[in-house]
Amino acid sequence: MIDKLFRPRSVAVIGASREPGKVGHDVVKNLLASGFPGKIFPVNPKAKEILGLPCWPDIASVPEAVDLAVVAIPARLVPQIIEACGEKKVPVAVILSAGFREAGAEGARLEAQVLKIARKYGLRILGPNCLGVMDTATPLNATFAAQPPLKGEVGFFSQSGALCLAVLEWSRAKGVGLSRFVSLGNKSDISEIDCLRALADDPQTKVILGYLEGVTDGQAFLKMAREVTRKKPVIILKGGTTAAGAKAASSHTGSLAGSEQAYQAAFKQTGIVRAEELEEFLNLALAFALQPPPSGPNVVVVTNSGGPGILTADASERQGLHLPSLERDTVERLRQILPPYASFYNPVDVLGDADAERYEKVLSLLLKEKDINALIVILSTTATIDPQEAARRLAALAPQAKGTSLVTCFLGSETSATASGILLKAQIPNFEYPEKAVSCLAKMWHYRTWLMTPEEEPVSLKIDRRRAAAVIAAAKQEKRRQLYEHEVKEILGAYGFTFPRSLMARTSDEALLSAKAIGYPVVMKIISPSIIHKTDVGGVWTNITSEEELLEAFFTLTSRARKIAPSSSILGVLIQEMVSDGRETILGFSRDPQFGPLIMFGLGGIYVEVLKDVSFRLAPFGRGQAQEMIREIRGYPLLKGVRGQPEADLEALSQAIIALAQLTIDFPELTEGDINPLMVRPRGRGALAVDARLTLGG
Amino acid sequence: MIDKLFRPRSVAVIGASREPGKVGHDVVKNLLASGFPGKIFPVNPKAKEILGLPCWPDIASVPEAVDLAVVAIPARLVPQIIEACGEKKVPVAVILSAGFREAGAEGARLEAQVLKIARKYGLRILGPNCLGVMDTATPLNATFAAQPPLKGEVGFFSQSGALCLAVLEWSRAKGVGLSRFVSLGNKSDISEIDCLRALADDPQTKVILGYLEGVTDGQAFLKMAREVTRKKPVIILKGGTTAAGAKAASSHTGSLAGSEQAYQAAFKQTGIVRAEELEEFLNLALAFALQPPPSGPNVVVVTNSGGPGILTADASERQGLHLPSLERDTVERLRQILPPYASFYNPVDVLGDADAERYEKVLSLLLKEKDINALIVILSTTATIDPQEAARRLAALAPQAKGTSLVTCFLGSETSATASGILLKAQIPNFEYPEKAVSCLAKMWHYRTWLMTPEEEPVSLKIDRRRAAAVIAAAKQEKRRQLYEHEVKEILGAYGFTFPRSLMARTSDEALLSAKAIGYPVVMKIISPSIIHKTDVGGVWTNITSEEELLEAFFTLTSRARKIAPSSSILGVLIQEMVSDGRETILGFSRDPQFGPLIMFGLGGIYVEVLKDVSFRLAPFGRGQAQEMIREIRGYPLLKGVRGQPEADLEALSQAIIALAQLTIDFPELTEGDINPLMVRPRGRGALAVDARLTLGG
Repeated sequence: MIDKLFRPRSVAVIGASREPGKVGHDVVKNLLASGFPGKIFPVNPKAKEILGLPCWPDIASVPEAVDLAVVAIPARLVPQIIEACGEKKVPVAVILSAGFREAGAEGARLEAQVLKIARKYGLRILGPNCLGVMDTATPLNATFAAQPPLKGEVGFFSQSGALCLAVLEWSRAKGVGLSRFVSLGNKSDISEIDCLRALADDPQTKVILGYLEGVTDGQAFLKMAREVTRKKPVIILKGGTTAAGAKAASSHTGSLAGSEQAYQAAFKQTGIVRAEELEEFLNLALAFALQPPPSGPNVVVVTNSGGPGILTADASERQGLHLPSLERDTVERLRQILPPYASFYNPVDVLGDADAERYEKVLSLLLKEKDINALIVILSTTATIDPQEAARRLAALAPQAKGTSLVTCFLGSETSATASGILLKAQIPNFEYPEKAVSCLAKMWHYRTWLMTPEEEPVSLKIDRRRAAAVIAAAKQEKRRQLYEHEVKEILGAYGFTFPRSLMARTSDEALLSAKAIGYPVVMKIISPSIIHKTDVGGVWTNITSEEELLEAFFTLTSRARKIAPSSSILGVLIQEMVSDGRETILGFSRDPQFGPLIMFGLGGIYVEVLKDVSFRLAPFGRGQAQEMIREIRGYPLLKGVRGQPEADLEALSQAIIALAQLTIDFPELTEGDINPLMVRPRGRGALAVDARLTLGG
Repeated sequence: MIDKLFRPRSVAVIGASREPGKVGHDVVKNLLASGFPGKIFPVNPKAKEILGLPCWPDIASVPEAVDLAVVAIPARLVPQIIEACGEKKVPVAVILSAGFREAGAEGARLEAQVLKIARKYGLRILGPNCLGVMDTATPLNATFAAQPPLKGEVGFFSQSGALCLAVLEWSRAKGVGLSRFVSLGNKSDISEIDCLRALADDPQTKVILGYLEGVTDGQAFLKMAREVTRKKPVIILKGGTTAAGAKAASSHTGSLAGSEQAYQAAFKQTGIVRAEELEEFLNLALAFALQPPPSGPNVVVVTNSGGPGILTADASERQGLHLPSLERDTVERLRQILPPYASFYNPVDVLGDADAERYEKVLSLLLKEKDINALIVILSTTATIDPQEAARRLAALAPQAKGTSLVTCFLGSETSATASGILLKAQIPNFEYPEKAVSCLAKMWHYRTWLMTPEEEPVSLKIDRRRAAAVIAAAKQEKRRQLYEHEVKEILGAYGFTFPRSLMARTSDEALLSAKAIGYPVVMKIISPSIIHKTDVGGVWTNITSEEELLEAFFTLTSRARKIAPSSSILGVLIQEMVSDGRETILGFSRDPQFGPLIMFGLGGIYVEVLKDVSFRLAPFGRGQAQEMIREIRGYPLLKGVRGQPEADLEALSQAIIALAQLTIDFPELTEGDINPLMVRPRGRGALAVDARLTLGG
């Protein structure tokens, strides 16, 4: 319930000042200038009146209820003020003051103190160390930003004050207005999750734009983002994605940046549109605010110049858009409009001597084509064309673009600037460079595919949770971190995993009998709690085809084991069915500090170790994400079957991935583990967990 | 010798016109306005005087020698005019007129005719269908561009007129001047190679900027580019790199775009700085024109805002730059300048309340540090800073930046625009977004590493060229396209390749004897000219360890072969030494239509087929490029040795790559081929060509 942050009936400014340039002055000035319809109560014991408003000595003496308190006083005084706000039953406070967590250990203590007081009263806090909040519909401007906002449909939140200022300036320069604007500052309480909810519920907001360094509660973020992106596009720029950036982020607002793999997975799984750079962040905001995402990948480029047309075509193909050839009768109709030297393919080249009218004719024709999902109009300034006139004619055509997304690139900064305003009024985003128009369209199309993907249904897994819980409880009681092989099997078995047939042998005679029972060829593995990575110490022997080989293997394995582990710890040799028709894969998981269980999938051996050909998702997820994980790796064709090999049992594989994800959710005490290898057999024959490890948290 | 194109003593404008807006008028106007110091002769039979200059009825009647003829008359009249220019001994003509190759078959014939006439007289042609030429040092403006150029140090050539206009506008908007400017148009004669030479030789030109769709002569381009990049940076934007783009390019100026792989290799091998997008193209021009490339990857970021600092750090790491921690005594000195809450690491955060003076102090300190190769200054507009004042102080510091590259990012379009001019005068490139500053620096550093790489020495290979030539000549005489296995061996043997021991067997008895002689295990392969891809038809049997297995293999292989090939064509079964300690690699080559022999390297089997993990270079090249090819593949660690495997014989492998490259140069009639697999044995033990194919041109 942070509705009062955006639509308060009254605002108190604590630390209001008569002195222009001071934060406490500028906030009052901005509140007044924004036309805020509610009451404004400046609070300052030393002043009688500020900017024509009567001033109050303290919040307690304010004669009415206060919905929003804006705090602009030195950090050390903030705790007592928050206490007073609590007493006054203020529901939300914005703390603009700096000098908290970002300023070292002393500040961090102060911040914790403030938060504790606020929690006591159920008071929500924005900040500290922030720029404030705006809502252009209320209207409310409770910031000390020098520039007023432009009213519009982009909802924005940011962990960085500089990004707040950059977006404000961009908004004014481009003429793309904002609906709500939240500077999160140190994010002690109100977080990106609150913002996502507030912006999703706000009818004024069409697009959500956010700059994040870290998330407060990964699982809650996933859940919220998944919901919100179904309603509105959410564009996120994530700072701190590299080691260097993460280091900088942690010294900035003290936030943990988390692992890039986890964020990548989070954005994929929730349909968030990720901006790679600041420029793209702003371009995406422009494009999403003005145009509908294309309903298909088919793009037609119209240009009066070859080179930029080619660059547009290149960018489109690189970004996964498609440039279809035009229908024969479309080409025929174009021939009647265009000179014979024009190109009637795609890009459509209307030639360097085109005027605004020629553009108009061609576009009015192409806008009627059903199979064109998007049009990119490229215009170079030539002697024969008046860019402003062309912009006007395009703007007039815009209402005809029913299902077609329309973007333009008027080349050259001056040309672009003059045309942009005209185009903007007709909801056409104009870009200075063709590749930018393309990359926005491509991401819009990608977002559209997300909207078209049905929401994931919960998968019903046959799970014996109690059986797994019992094993884990026993190991916990023994204070073991590493589970024994038979325990791991018990747990995974309870989650539907199957294993190669295997028998334990303590003597060579037992080994011979076991192998006979299982049937050659077999695999032999040394079993000892002291030996975790069996392969690395030569503790595994594969493809044993005869009794002779088996005996040799038995003696070699046991003598090797005795060299590196205490004899008492060697439990014996496992004789295992050899799976020869399976493809080697690895499933694994770890726990991301921000998002929790991160599930990894890859092909086994060098594919994971050398080629790093792996995919990640955050648990929990359903069948769709599991299938995507499988398809995402470069080696996917190896599972589909190459050179006459049969397709692997992808259904069993995705079931296994989902089951592992479920296990990590059910037992948070399992901190990491892997199934390596999981041998995936041909379709219909399932997958076998040949070896696995599970680790309990300390 | 196209010096006269840039520095003519006299210019004739054929088709000069009195009518403003006509090409023939605007060229004369631009020539006059540019202050061209030589004589200008307008030629027009219907006029007496144009823009105050006496007009001549035809070129023959011009009373003096003409160094440069600018032709602005309808296409169909151009041949006779070029004939007249030839008679007049004009050395260079610029044909502005359109209606040639770009306009279809008729135009293409006309263009060929014009070229034929020009060749007869040794007359060089720029265009047709171009914008003209400029040289700001002469000064000369022989274009019909509406805007005059700004004088400077960027030399530019382009296959696209629209890109010419875009660069002109950018140059004026950013204040970065041009030295020479060449619009190549249809590129019938004067090409990118002439431009590279002319710009390399031009003392005014510091940076070379080119937009290309295709190259005229790939091998000549490679040679020229390799030379020029040692003197000056060459930045190329290549249009038509995708199927969609290439299709558009071929319908644009009818130029073949060639394969992206070949271009990628060409740019890598010649040290060309490749721009991926138009915006980057212009940004790189700005950065290279103003700053020296950093002499190392160590970057320090100075910022007054956390978020943009983090984004800069992220971009730096992603782009291969390094953000070192500052030396302890540097941190100590910074502590004396900065408030205690500042960050003294990297990025250095001077805090949001910084003023211009604080920036100045910090930077003047950091500029003295020896180990910092580049400084990126990020500035967000806050209440406490005057961006213009900061720009002025930075500009004043610039001369102190002796070995350090200095770039800035003043955030926000308005702020950036006002500061840019001040910074530009001090040779500091300013960017609107931090990631742009980083990517320019990263490419500059990459160019610097190219300059530091010694030029490749020719490799001396022991080659018996005559032996190979004899085999090829024999096959040619028989009009065969596919060479027999023994011929392939003979040729590759002459180029230093070695092969597993092998013997041909026609009967099972011969097979048994051969295997005995070679020693088990062996490999068996069916030999028939009708069976090229042996593996695909089950014509190869590996790891034969006994006489029994050998007999089974012999009968199976021969009976399989009889089913798919005429009995008469089955020459027998090859018994071959089994190479078990080698790592499987593939070498291959094809011929790119523009660049010629394209050599491919990869790990064998699925690495090439499924993972497409391959590298390419254009022959000829030396040891350095061969080594880079090997290191470039993702699977490289497999050759270096993982999990206790020994390192493969990388020296033998690079020798093999170079030898294959040499073979493709020596025998252009070899159109494609591969050595698959080339088994690379452990270090010191060489590489064995197990199987190979060579194809002769039709």
